[in-house]
Amino acid sequence: MRKGQRPSSRPSAPAGNRPRFWGRHPVIAALANPARTVRRMWGTREALAALDLPPALPVTFADVADLGRLVPHDAPHQGLVIEVDPLPDMWLGDLIDLGRDDRRPLLVLDQVTDPHNVGAVLRSAAAFDALGIVTQDRHAPPESGALARAASGALEVVPWVRVVNLARALDEIGEAGFWRIGLTGTAPRTLGATLGETRPALVLGAEGEGMRANTEAHCDELAKLPISPKVESLNVSNAAAIALYAAAVR
Amino acid sequence: MRKGQRPSSRPSAPAGNRPRFWGRHPVIAALANPARTVRRMWGTREALAALDLPPALPVTFADVADLGRLVPHDAPHQGLVIEVDPLPDMWLGDLIDLGRDDRRPLLVLDQVTDPHNVGAVLRSAAAFDALGIVTQDRHAPPESGALARAASGALEVVPWVRVVNLARALDEIGEAGFWRIGLTGTAPRTLGATLGETRPALVLGAEGEGMRANTEAHCDELAKLPISPKVESLNVSNAAAIALYAAAVR
Repeated sequence: MRKGQRPSSRPSAPAGNRPRFWGRHPVIAALANPARTVRRMWGTREALAALDLPPALPVTFADVADLGRLVPHDAPHQGLVIEVDPLPDMWLGDLIDLGRDDRRPLLVLDQVTDPHNVGAVLRSAAAFDALGIVTQDRHAPPESGALARAASGALEVVPWVRVVNLARALDEIGEAGFWRIGLTGTAPRTLGATLGETRPALVLGAEGEGMRANTEAHCDELAKLPISPKVESLNVSNAAAIALYAAAVR
Repeated sequence: MRKGQRPSSRPSAPAGNRPRFWGRHPVIAALANPARTVRRMWGTREALAALDLPPALPVTFADVADLGRLVPHDAPHQGLVIEVDPLPDMWLGDLIDLGRDDRRPLLVLDQVTDPHNVGAVLRSAAAFDALGIVTQDRHAPPESGALARAASGALEVVPWVRVVNLARALDEIGEAGFWRIGLTGTAPRTLGATLGETRPALVLGAEGEGMRANTEAHCDELAKLPISPKVESLNVSNAAAIALYAAAVR
């Protein structure tokens, strides 16, 4: 527990290996983020020439083929690769404090494991000015090149809280005044009908299995998107984007 | 030109290699699609036992490791792999005929090359009962396992027309009575304001560069989504999902 502050869902342990990010958007956003420690950088002369680099950063000039060996096969590195420390952990209580005076939505992801999906959710969260995202420590992807690429820079600007126990985090979110809306195809009402004038915490479940029963039980209300009964579900990042849009235009 | 019918944007040439699909949703949807020719199938005894297989299909029992060698590294095959023929080409005129008596939206993708994005767009198109999608022959991905997986079965049910010339296709779409709305961040009005009571053709540009100028010039109106000025753009499949939702709930 932090000294002199109230108890809050504990952040996760730091990650082991340093992630590598690639591509212009993720690299430029990481360099611009004062909270991000960039350890090393590789790049083509051309790509590096276009950047404003911090003087202390060790930079290695490399050709396109060398860069290709630093990243996963076929990763579109655009001449730029960096090795970074994962961002410092953030406490849920601090995130809630950030949104104390506004009505920005919070996103809660229950066991969404695909890094592309989490990255895309971060990108949409930035686009619709969400307060941040909350995931469970286990069953959520660590920071990675694929995630940073899908986030297109948003990993550096959208607060991301990892908690040990999502049910307990939802309790804390509810106590803070958020209306916890769990998105699930079996809900009786549509999202549009449930949003009202609330400060929403939008809770989305895993690809495939959806939300766990215990997560649903910690929501104030369940809501569905108006999709065809012929289709089981939407991609989770698409569902998140729609939910954020619906909250933004109400 | 088809005999006895009006001229229409020509479909593309057939693909070369047979694509392989994997995973329960894509495989079950392909087997259920009468227009889909499935050439071969591999699967674990357990996964195959759960399916109702057509009698003429050559099936090979395989263990999980063997299946892993048939698909890209780490592809979540869930014990099922099939080799298929790409679906028969469809003419734009035939797709337009299908929607003659309704107001279902059409999606037009300009040089969206990422198979995950096109697959996710197909999934959202099925979810919101879109008439179909139109892509340009070149600069659009062929049918593939990754695309079919992202589509989660929707590749088999959403009509997909590939045209040689997108500008000419947009002419044909406009003549058929669709209101061609190009989504771009620089538009003066929001999508919500432009949709009205139209039958929309929602035109989306490539990841990164956005729509080409000539594509924009073939739209009736440009529209933006209400995103933060701090963010350049949304992921294209997320933008498509939001546009389809906005059209569905107006």
